Amino acid sequence: LTTPSLIALDWGTSNLRASLLDGMGHAIETRSAPGGVMAVKDGQFSAALLALCGDWITQFECPLIASGMIGSRQGWKEAPYLDCPATLAQAATQLTTVPIDVIDSGKPLRPLHIAAGLKCIDAGGEFDVMRGEEIQIWGAGLLAQSCCVLPGTHSKWAWLGDSGGGGEVSHFRTFMTGELYGLLTQHGILGRLMDFEAAKSAFQKDEFAAGVRLGLRGHSQMSHTIFAARTAGLMGRVVPAGLPDYLSGILIGAEIGGATLDAKPAGGVTLIGDDALCIRYETALEVAAIGARRAPDGTTTRGQWLIAVAAGLVRAAT
Amino acid sequence: LTTPSLIALDWGTSNLRASLLDGMGHAIETRSAPGGVMAVKDGQFSAALLALCGDWITQFECPLIASGMIGSRQGWKEAPYLDCPATLAQAATQLTTVPIDVIDSGKPLRPLHIAAGLKCIDAGGEFDVMRGEEIQIWGAGLLAQSCCVLPGTHSKWAWLGDSGGGGEVSHFRTFMTGELYGLLTQHGILGRLMDFEAAKSAFQKDEFAAGVRLGLRGHSQMSHTIFAARTAGLMGRVVPAGLPDYLSGILIGAEIGGATLDAKPAGGVTLIGDDALCIRYETALEVAAIGARRAPDGTTTRGQWLIAVAAGLVRAAT
Repeated sequence: LTTPSLIALDWGTSNLRASLLDGMGHAIETRSAPGGVMAVKDGQFSAALLALCGDWITQFECPLIASGMIGSRQGWKEAPYLDCPATLAQAATQLTTVPIDVIDSGKPLRPLHIAAGLKCIDAGGEFDVMRGEEIQIWGAGLLAQSCCVLPGTHSKWAWLGDSGGGGEVSHFRTFMTGELYGLLTQHGILGRLMDFEAAKSAFQKDEFAAGVRLGLRGHSQMSHTIFAARTAGLMGRVVPAGLPDYLSGILIGAEIGGATLDAKPAGGVTLIGDDALCIRYETALEVAAIGARRAPDGTTTRGQWLIAVAAGLVRAAT
Repeated sequence: LTTPSLIALDWGTSNLRASLLDGMGHAIETRSAPGGVMAVKDGQFSAALLALCGDWITQFECPLIASGMIGSRQGWKEAPYLDCPATLAQAATQLTTVPIDVIDSGKPLRPLHIAAGLKCIDAGGEFDVMRGEEIQIWGAGLLAQSCCVLPGTHSKWAWLGDSGGGGEVSHFRTFMTGELYGLLTQHGILGRLMDFEAAKSAFQKDEFAAGVRLGLRGHSQMSHTIFAARTAGLMGRVVPAGLPDYLSGILIGAEIGGATLDAKPAGGVTLIGDDALCIRYETALEVAAIGARRAPDGTTTRGQWLIAVAAGLVRAAT
């Protein structure tokens, strides 16, 4: 069972993370490097990949699958965006294949299969896109008719369709919450009144929750509502150490308010993401009276494994 | 009539602008320097002022009045924020006085009078503040029960109360539209698909109007709606040269949508600001079916003059 069966790459904007999976799809070993799409120069993706796990590739000769921004226009090769509703089975038939360059002669290597992203069109005719998160959604094995949230630089809210087993992504929406927080605090005027050093020592939960309440109430005029992170500082209602989490709360509250405009998810939401962000979203969703549960860890690897199986790249051990 | 009667300073974050006014409040001469609050080091405000118009000050011995961020905590001396509803007559009784340091001995100089800012509290209990714009509003001589918009880094929407003659600022709201545009295009991912060089050559009015329509429709989930400035580029629906104005339209549309949430201003709005920004807002307001007219130029100087007269610092020639 511990026979290496698949090399699964989570290849994003900043990082490249490789997992060597056994015949059940469990990780035997995991490695990562800051070799994300933005860090690789002149299209040297083969070299970046071989530097991280060339030994696995030559030694085990397993199939390779990748998901994330590596399939974007700035990545190795642009993989398509599948239309929603989209299932894992459909994605498995749409892998984009790139050869891996062999540098020191040697025998040819197996190619890399890059998973497609998803796109959807909202009621107003605007596109939305995701690339990588769909793998996590499928990997989380969600119920039919459920809703999940992947917090991050660009948070994704996704609604699952009728087919169970995490099968069908019906539609989704991106919220630029994390990016806005970074821009406003690092480069904007709101950051000037903030004490980041003091804020770092602990999650300022009360200020965060106050921000969430404000964001939920004021999401319809968000570019006004965020200004409260300045006036609350000017008027001494929130101390400088509390302002970063107050703003974080406003932005996440506005996200939740906007995402649940049509209806609150009846069965609550499933959170997929890292621990620190999930704690914030759990707190915020509680303020919004929306139930939240966490997906198990390892959704990316699990989703990659399931696609590789569905594509016939590997056969699951039974 | 051309006797110098008042030195009026528009002293903001980036620039210091000085006008020498005659006995009717008309400018005899105007000078400016990049000596804004952020550019002045170690509190050397006297020196910055004397460098720009020390000759006026010593020669004419007129009273001096200033408005803008010079009255903020980062400025020369913090001037209060008056509570709304606030009138020019009230502001005239609340000037904050600072002495001007005489560097080369000489006789003492007349002090500088800094105008107060305004604050208001919205229905949810959040503060909003302005500093400098209230002078422009009073200077514009608006009708009772009207609404005005001052576009900018932090756009202000202000509603006038019952007292006519531009008298009473009833309440107002700040929208961080200009700052968000700057942050998103200069430091964020949305800027990466944009061709700023090509965009600079002309105002891309069609893309801007399309953005406004989207912003008006999507202001309730603004952190999602702005992501359309990426997807429209990715999907080739808006060319790289059109993306900056598309995003500008989304943000201004979302501002208008948020500001007019309760009710569209029945009599339209009066725009107070520089030409390029006013053209954008006129276009956007037209898309939103809200009437717009422009305030005459010189609202800052006019407002400063009116306050100085009301405060008894100068007597208007008759």
